[in-house]
This record gives sequence, structure tokens and C-alpha cells, in this order.
Amino acid sequence: MSSDYKTQKGQDFDRAAFESLLKRKVFLWQSFEPYGAVKGLFDYGPPLETLEAEVINIWRDHFIRTEKMMALKCSMLTPFEVLKTSGHVDKFADYMCKDPKTGEILRSDHLIKDVIEQRLLSDREARGEKIEVAEEDPKKKKKAVKAAKTAVKLEDAQRKEYEHMLATLDDCTGDDMGALIKKHDIRNPTSGNEVEPPVSVNLMFQTQIGATGKEPAFLRPETAQGQFLSFQKLLEYSDGQLPFASASIGYSFRNELSPRSGLLRVREFLMAEVEHFVDPESGKRHPKFHTVKDVKLPLLSRKTQNEGGSKPTVISIGEAVETKLVDNETLGYFLVRIMYFMQKIGIDMGKLRFRQHMQNEMAHYAADCWDCELQSSYGWIECVGCADRSAYDLSVHMKATGVPLQVREPLKEPYRVEEWTAALDKKKSGPKFKKDAGKVQSALDALTQDMREKLSISMQKEGKVSVDVPEMEGGKVELEKDIVSFQKESRIETMREYIPNVIEPSFGIGRILYSLMEHVYWTREGDAARSVMSFAPTVAPIKVLVVPLQKDAKFAPLLSHLEQRLDDDAISFRVDQSGVSIGKRYSRNDELGIPFGITVDYQSLEDNSFTLRDRDSTKQVRASLDQILEAVAKMCRGKESWKDVQGRLPVFESEGKEE
Amino acid sequence: MSSDYKTQKGQDFDRAAFESLLKRKVFLWQSFEPYGAVKGLFDYGPPLETLEAEVINIWRDHFIRTEKMMALKCSMLTPFEVLKTSGHVDKFADYMCKDPKTGEILRSDHLIKDVIEQRLLSDREARGEKIEVAEEDPKKKKKAVKAAKTAVKLEDAQRKEYEHMLATLDDCTGDDMGALIKKHDIRNPTSGNEVEPPVSVNLMFQTQIGATGKEPAFLRPETAQGQFLSFQKLLEYSDGQLPFASASIGYSFRNELSPRSGLLRVREFLMAEVEHFVDPESGKRHPKFHTVKDVKLPLLSRKTQNEGGSKPTVISIGEAVETKLVDNETLGYFLVRIMYFMQKIGIDMGKLRFRQHMQNEMAHYAADCWDCELQSSYGWIECVGCADRSAYDLSVHMKATGVPLQVREPLKEPYRVEEWTAALDKKKSGPKFKKDAGKVQSALDALTQDMREKLSISMQKEGKVSVDVPEMEGGKVELEKDIVSFQKESRIETMREYIPNVIEPSFGIGRILYSLMEHVYWTREGDAARSVMSFAPTVAPIKVLVVPLQKDAKFAPLLSHLEQRLDDDAISFRVDQSGVSIGKRYSRNDELGIPFGITVDYQSLEDNSFTLRDRDSTKQVRASLDQILEAVAKMCRGKESWKDVQGRLPVFESEGKEE
Repeated sequence: MSSDYKTQKGQDFDRAAFESLLKRKVFLWQSFEPYGAVKGLFDYGPPLETLEAEVINIWRDHFIRTEKMMALKCSMLTPFEVLKTSGHVDKFADYMCKDPKTGEILRSDHLIKDVIEQRLLSDREARGEKIEVAEEDPKKKKKAVKAAKTAVKLEDAQRKEYEHMLATLDDCTGDDMGALIKKHDIRNPTSGNEVEPPVSVNLMFQTQIGATGKEPAFLRPETAQGQFLSFQKLLEYSDGQLPFASASIGYSFRNELSPRSGLLRVREFLMAEVEHFVDPESGKRHPKFHTVKDVKLPLLSRKTQNEGGSKPTVISIGEAVETKLVDNETLGYFLVRIMYFMQKIGIDMGKLRFRQHMQNEMAHYAADCWDCELQSSYGWIECVGCADRSAYDLSVHMKATGVPLQVREPLKEPYRVEEWTAALDKKKSGPKFKKDAGKVQSALDALTQDMREKLSISMQKEGKVSVDVPEMEGGKVELEKDIVSFQKESRIETMREYIPNVIEPSFGIGRILYSLMEHVYWTREGDAARSVMSFAPTVAPIKVLVVPLQKDAKFAPLLSHLEQRLDDDAISFRVDQSGVSIGKRYSRNDELGIPFGITVDYQSLEDNSFTLRDRDSTKQVRASLDQILEAVAKMCRGKESWKDVQGRLPVFESEGKEE
Repeated sequence: MSSDYKTQKGQDFDRAAFESLLKRKVFLWQSFEPYGAVKGLFDYGPPLETLEAEVINIWRDHFIRTEKMMALKCSMLTPFEVLKTSGHVDKFADYMCKDPKTGEILRSDHLIKDVIEQRLLSDREARGEKIEVAEEDPKKKKKAVKAAKTAVKLEDAQRKEYEHMLATLDDCTGDDMGALIKKHDIRNPTSGNEVEPPVSVNLMFQTQIGATGKEPAFLRPETAQGQFLSFQKLLEYSDGQLPFASASIGYSFRNELSPRSGLLRVREFLMAEVEHFVDPESGKRHPKFHTVKDVKLPLLSRKTQNEGGSKPTVISIGEAVETKLVDNETLGYFLVRIMYFMQKIGIDMGKLRFRQHMQNEMAHYAADCWDCELQSSYGWIECVGCADRSAYDLSVHMKATGVPLQVREPLKEPYRVEEWTAALDKKKSGPKFKKDAGKVQSALDALTQDMREKLSISMQKEGKVSVDVPEMEGGKVELEKDIVSFQKESRIETMREYIPNVIEPSFGIGRILYSLMEHVYWTREGDAARSVMSFAPTVAPIKVLVVPLQKDAKFAPLLSHLEQRLDDDAISFRVDQSGVSIGKRYSRNDELGIPFGITVDYQSLEDNSFTLRDRDSTKQVRASLDQILEAVAKMCRGKESWKDVQGRLPVFESEGKEE
């Protein structure tokens, strides 16, 4: 797979070398290494932690400030009931099989895929095909070697059945997978043992609030639920006006059964989620859509995918919405804003596409859904999901709690309604039903218009009616004439009540950071050992490398002055005073992605001038300290490019090439 | 208590009014309200979320960038073993008593305190004293009323015993408290039931990683442990040079049994923790101490507290370190940096003090510890702890894992050492002990020099020795001459190995934010209903309020131009176009703490000039758009004050006072 994937300079991407750089420069590592690292948990070292902070600040600026979103911070610990209502307790699960002898837990789909792929590979071996293992993963290589030893040829029909299985595995239920495992004698590949049938395992981390045992809770699997439950506060803050959007940057958790793929599948991750609330009757128009309608995006439609294609069509968002390829303006507006954000942080635009969800990928309530996918050596990976969740979440929470999570606004044109009412006589029902009186009222409230009309007829005939009250003993109650009355009433409806629809762009920050690191990685021509991380100056973890020409006490006062000035301008920097050549010092700091270098040399002592070096081109200019700092500050704010700077400041030719 | 506490203008602080503002302007609320809010969990609405982000950015700039700290992000989910080693599994606990009839869980110290205070109150009632309940808490008022009904007079000796109990409660063990509860018949005040004896309950949230049940884990109670376990990576990144510091901004968790005091005691909270690693033989000097040595701080020493005083001494940090009041330069340097940080974000310097820990407050390994306390209506609250943790954490993790968490550096002056060695003959010991060979070697390695010498004598005499190996069956092993040899060797030691000491400033961000909100709250003179949140422009959640004089389509193009310019300068703003008077619009946005207002009026249409209003003084200037925006940008970056701006731009007198 990785062989298709190239660096920004068109070189073959060498994942082993890339990972070695990440390790050497402490970008990240598995957590708790001294205790035997835990899978699916990662620590970020200084370069990656700071990169994340820069990316988050751009996200805040690009979405929260510019779009006037309401920033929210909600709790990670979430009571059982909330996630029961949202559907996560029942549906946020994977199927797993247990190896009863070793106690090992295997994800059912992974198990089937691994075993069947292995058999197909073995078949090709047996047929004398040359097997190339493109994967860097040494485990896979090992398996391939093992396969070669015991190559088994398959019947043609069998091979076809296996291929079909792999293609349709995503649509399988747990029972389906259980049947496949039995039929094809699929066993734990490491032990050779038969496995137990698939069972559904919830992927949320469970815990308890307090010490009573009465408050079961989970770590949230998404930040969205907290935002939905805050809806009334947000509506208040926006003076009752829709549309508006909330935004949360926070952690979510997923208890992966067997995490793979490094940063792309982790158990604890930072998300940035927007919930944009809109009146469903507004056509989901967006007030700023006209400002983006001519922007072109690479859109891979459901249709193209159904036809087996994978090449996106580049088309303006205006056209896409007009032709209903993208469901509505608000969704379209966000797709453009997402692309702009990716551009700002330095994502390679040739490695970005928007893919529409297939019908079976979407939640049943979703109207449309597009993923922003970034290409990396792992393939095309979903990094932002942009879904129309309709009114689902607000509706279920409102139903479960009775708290109105809706908008109430005056109708432009009030109208007359005729309605059957069902009123309980409080004075009589209270003493009769005592604490159950509320349940009876609720049961009456829940009756449809039809039912009320029918009951009014029964009441006239028989003087009493029987009403279902499932929460009471016996499940029903007899009501007599004097205790309840059914009447047809006519009134003027002046208010409209509706549950807003929600468009949700949801960003996986870790995946975006990982993709970004792959996108900016390349090696100098002719020297694969000299690698560079070309972080844009706006996001680079450290902005400036300061290198005195050599160790000489004479430089100390000037260095100290330079450091003070950089501090005053809030520009982060690193001083490299080690004894090696300037070229070498630049080279090893290129791996940290420091975009600019300032050299302090003997001429600096004479005229207070400095050279400024650009990491990507290794070109230099020479100018006064003020000019250099101004240029750096502007480039770090994205207000000027190196090309601009090189055009207006005197170019400096150093003697010879950088070592 | 709250009656001593004043606003920055010297007014009595009205907590009810303050909390009503926080609610009205959606600063925060208890999480999951529609499901019946969960205690100890809070959501932040737009103003507080953004305030936090601004404060964190200043923290990053003030500590991480300026002090060149290594930013780290470590996992929240933490394996059991890690926290077993750190001592949290055994010691991070509170005592609780269960009411066996209701199932209620009561914190033992709270229970004793509540009941005994109640009895003392009742006694004062009975003696005819007038009881004033200063607390706003309606529950306490209720209790007081109840007490009045059943006032019981105490014997003098009894009263003294109770007073002594309250004063010494913090030093009680679980058994002590159990004895007190029994002796004084302390019962659950809400039910009147006897309670079970105190049991220790761990305060960490427990969960499981994966589905095997073999990976118990906790949510971390502090960010520090992840930083300690990353020590080797950090040492590498700093090229082996000490001192250096790591810094983490992240969430920690504490499963409070019965949370009280709003934001001051929560179950999920943001911390910013620094771990500064230093050579213990360096005298814990700090290279930048000379830059702060004349800075004066309010220090409340242990001695003063022991003498019953509570007034801090204002003294320069240089003197404090010299007189050993503050243990060392590094601790002293951080106290100053903490104070500067608090100043930058707008904390009232009259409500800040540093309090030294009493001997019984400190962990057994701590060398010295100072809290930065901020005063609020809840009293003086610890908001930053600044402790010298010595080499404790690195040592215990190194011991538990065998992974070296230490520094190895060449000695300046190599020296000769004579040492007894104890070497196992691998060829013979392997076959003899098989898998236990390692245990035997470890037991030998653990022998002191003295022991080795003694064993060498035994060996000479008897030809064999007996060595304790607690991990083996039988607990000891016989070793013969041919299998182990004890020899006195002399060698030149060229390397030094040591475990660094750690100075740890640890910030509770939520407590700081809450204190800050209290510090900036006040009401306009003569109108208690007009409250103001005087956030410094650097941290204010929204920087500018834009108010068009009145609803008039003529203003639209100019408004749109102004909004574009503010966006270009990345200045957050809010437009208030509602129909009410300008004064009213300013007034209600003062509650959000927006520091500046720009009015768009008819003159603006003529000459593109605008008035700029200062929230705190309500003074105004009038100038061109460029001038206004430049002034706002500078004030928001902390580079200019309103006084400066008022001095250089033409003052604008509006007609009449603001409504």
C-alpha cells in the first residue's frame, strides 16, 4: 500500500525512516513505556504537543471566532442514562470472539479478515504467484514467510466465496460473522484454538461516580451529547435566534479491543466538534453561502463509489448544492470552511478529498454525510466527519427527560386549530390517585386526537372510560364522568414549536496531526539521511533557530540581546551552540521543522546585521535585526511568504553549500 | 465569612447576585441538567470557556515559551501498577461512613464537623447568644432555625472538648474518627441513624482497558506521573543537560464523595503542572534567580502560622532564600513567576498570598512547600501548590520497573573506589537455578558492602554461604565456592549517577478562573443592579462590543466594513443591534466583561470616525478607524493601557450620563 504514497517532493515515502525521526525527535511515544507500553495510548513530546496547540489555536480562530460560534466545555464523565438515551449503550460496540483457552480477545471482523486473507495469500503462493509484501509491518512479512511453507491451493469456487466474504464483511451482523467462523473453521491464528461465537462488547470506558454504586457512568465517546444537553442555555445566549452553532474542543474515549495503526486508532483522543442548529423549514440555507459558492472541492460522490470509482470530481460547491449532490447550503458551507482550515495548517491539498457516505455507513437518522479524508501511508483516512444529524439527538433527550430542547417562536401568521382536550379534575383526581395522579395525567396527554374523540363517545354512552397507564399497577385505570372531561375546543395558535436540525462537523485532531506530519516530511535531494519536516511557519512548534557561528564569548552580549528581542515579540526559538558546523546544526533542526534560522557571525558584531535562512529552500537574506524580526513575525502570522521576504531583503550567498 | 470579603471597589461582596450573573450570562452550570445535574461536574459556557483559553495561552507563553519548558501531553487513562507505585492506590483516599439504613455515604470529617458545629451552635442558642448566620447558604439557615427550636446547653468541659476536636480534626486517622463518632454518638443528621465505622475509600475513578479484565486502570489524579515516566525522553531532548523542566496542561480526576463549594471542589479539572528537574548537589540554584531577587512577595511562614498569625510578611525573595525561609532559589524563582502570572491575568494582588505548608500538611518526602492562595468569598483557597518533591517519584518508579530514571554524567574529577563485588558464575548458576538465576543475582546485587565483606569471610571459613532470596521458595539459597565469588576490587569511577530532585508548581486552573471572576466583579456606584466584570483586555472573552446608534439601514455598509477590519485583526467582537438605548446595551454587556465599545453613529457615516468606550471608566475617545483599531489591538496585547489611549486620542464627551 505504502508504495503508492509519495512525499510532497514525489519521493517514495519510507515509513520506517519517518517513524524513526518521530522517535528520535520525541514527537510521540506509547504511554507508560517503563511499565510496558499500553496499546492505543500515546504521549506527545514537545514538538507534537506544541504543534497541537498551534493547530487548535488556528481552529479556534477559524471556526469559533470567525464564525461567532459558542464555545462550550462539557464534562467527559457522563451518566449512564444520557448515553442510554443517545443510543451509545446499545450501539457503540464491536463484536469480539474469545479464545477460551488463552483468554485472548479478538475483534471478530479482524479475525475473519486476517484468516481469510492469509488463505487467499497461501493459495496464490501455491499457484506459483510471486508474493510481494509491500507492507513495512514485520509481522505481516513473517506471516507471508510462514504461508509460503504451508501453501494450500483453493478450489476456484472457494476462492470466489472468500473474496466475496471480504468485500461484504462490513455489512455482517454478529450472527452472520458467527456463521462464517463456524462454516469456514476460522480459528485464532496465534494459538490455533477454536473461538467462542461473537458477542457484542461495548466500547465505552465504564466507571462510577461517587461511592454509592448508584451512579454508573462512562467516559464520553464524543463531545456532542454535552452540547445537545446545553441547548436551552445556548438558545438563551443567542437571544432565541437561529441558526447558531456551538463548538467544543475536548477529549473522547473509545475502549478499542485491539488497537492498531498508531495514532489513527487510539483509546483517548482530542476532538473538535461543531453543532450547528438550524430550522429544518429554512431549507438549511447558510447566510454566508454566497461568499463561498464558487470555491471548487474534490468530491467523491456515493454514485461514483457505487460504480466502483475512487476519483473525486472537482466541482464548485454552488453547483454541488444546486444539483443536490451535497444536500444543503449549510453542509456545503462547512465543507469549504473545512478545506480552508486544512490549507491554513499546511495539509497537502493533493492529499485531501471529500467522500460521501454510502447509504449503509450512515446512521438511520442522518440526511447526508461527507468525510474529509486525508491521504497518508495508511491510505485515505477519515479526519473530519460532516454529518446532518437531523433532529435525532434533541428529540430523544427531550423525550427521555421531558425537558424542552426546542425552539418556541411567534408564528408570522397565527391560525385557528380545533382540538380534543382531555382534562383531569384536579380536586377529585388528587385524593383518588394520590401519587399516581401525575401518571394518569401523562397518559391522557399522550392520547392522540383520534383516541380522545373515541373516548368522548364512550364516555357519553357508558359514563366511564378505561385508559392505559402502563406505569401503574394493573396497567390501566377506570375514569368516571366527574373526574375527566373530553371536549372539542377551538383556539388560535400563535406560537410555533420545533426541534432544530443539527449539522455536525467533527474533527479528529490526532488523525489530522498525524496526516500533517506525513505530508510535510521529505528528504533533501541526494541525501535520504537529511530529512525535513516542512511545517508551515504558522504551526511550526519552534519558529526560529539561533546559531552563533562558533563558540566565542564575544557573541554572548549580542546573543542575549537577540534572545530578548525574540521574547519581546513572543517568537519561540531554540539556540544551538554545540560545536558542530552550522550546516549540521541546521540539518538536525530541520527534523524539528524549525522554519527560520538566524546566524550570528562576526559581521553581526560590527553592524548588527544577521542572516536569515529559510528551511525549505536553504536560501538566505541578510538585513538589520529590526527587518529580520519583522519578516519573521509576519511569516509566522501568515501575512507574508518567504518569497515575499526574499524579494524585498538583500539575498545572502554563503560560501559553499550547506554541509 | 463572606462579610469580610469585599469587591475591588470595597463594596460588600454579594455572592447571590454574583452567582445570578454567572447563571444569566451562561458562564457555567452543573453538567447534565436535563437529567438532574451531577454534583461536582460543571460545563463552561461561551464566556468562561473562552476566558479559560485566554488564560491557558498566557500560561503557555509565560511558562512554556519564556522558560523554554518541554511541553508534554500524557494519557489520562493510567494503568493500576503506575499508581500503585506512586502511592495513590494506597493513599489517595478519604474516610467515609455509611448510613446502613439509607445507603447514604458521608465523608467522616464532614460528618463530625457538621454535627459538632451544630451542637456548639445549639449551646450558644441555649445560652441566649444571638446567632447570626453570615453564610448565604439557605440550608445552613434552615439548620440554624431548627437548632433554635431544640437548643441544648452543654457543660463547659464538654464544650471545650468539642472545640478541641474541631481544631485537631485534620490530624485524625480513620480509627480516631471512628472513636469520636462512637464516643459522642454522632449520627447522620438527615436520618438520625447510627453510621458504620469509617472506611478508607479511594478517590480515583477506576475503569478497565480492553475487554480482558486484565488491565485495571484509573483516571489519573494528577498529570505529574506521566511526566516522570517520560524523564528519559526529556533528558535526551535536552542533550543530557540539567536543569530542565517539563510542563503539562491536562485534565485530572478526583471522585469526591460529596462535592461542595462549586468550582472549588470538582471531580474533573484542568491542571497545569511543571516538573523542574534539578541536580540535588547543585544547591537547587536557578540560573535566572538574579533577575528576580529584589521582587517582594507576601509570605505567610510556617512560624507565623504556628504562632497563630495569619498576616503575611512582605519580603524580597532574595532575602527569603538567604534566610532559608524559602528553601532554595528554584522554589523562590517559581514563586515570583507565579505571582507575575497572576498579575498578568488580572488577579487582585491584594487578594494573593503565599502560605508555607505546615509540617503535617507535607508529604513525607517533601523538602518545602508553598501554596499560592487567592482570597474569595470562600476564604483563602489554594490555587497553586509549589512543592519540592525531592527524588521521591523517579526513585520509586525506577525501583518498581528497573528502568533507569536518572542522570549519568562524566565526573569532573574521577576517583578511585574500593568495592566488594559478588559475582555469580553464569555457566554453573544457570543450570542450577534455571529461571530463578536472575532472582539470585538480584539478591546478590542488593547486598550492602558490609554484607559482602561478611559473606566473603564466611565463604573462606565454611566454603559456602546462605543468602536471602525472598522471591524464591524457602526464601534463601545456599551458594558454594565454585558458584559465587566475593572479591575486593579497586577501580576508577569516571561517571556519576544521580536521581534528580523535582520542584513542582501545580496550577488548578478552575480555581484560578473562579477566583478571577470574583476579583473582577463589582457594581456601579449607586446602582447595585448594574454589575461589571472587569476582565483585563488580555483575557476578556470578547474584546469589543459594536453598537450602532440605532436601527437604520444606512449603517449596514459601514458596520460590515468595521466587522471585516476587526476580523482581519483577529479581534473578537459582538454586535448589539437590539432596539434599546446605547447605555442599556453597554450596561448589559458589561456583565460579559467586554472591555471596549465602538459606537457607529451618523458622524461615522460622514467622516469614518468612531467613539471608543472604556468599560471600567465609561470614558470615551473619538478617532479614525485606524487609530481606534490600533489602540484596541495594543490594549488587548497588554502593550498599552486605557490611560495611555485616553492621553493620546481626543476625549469624547457624550451628552448626559449613560442610562
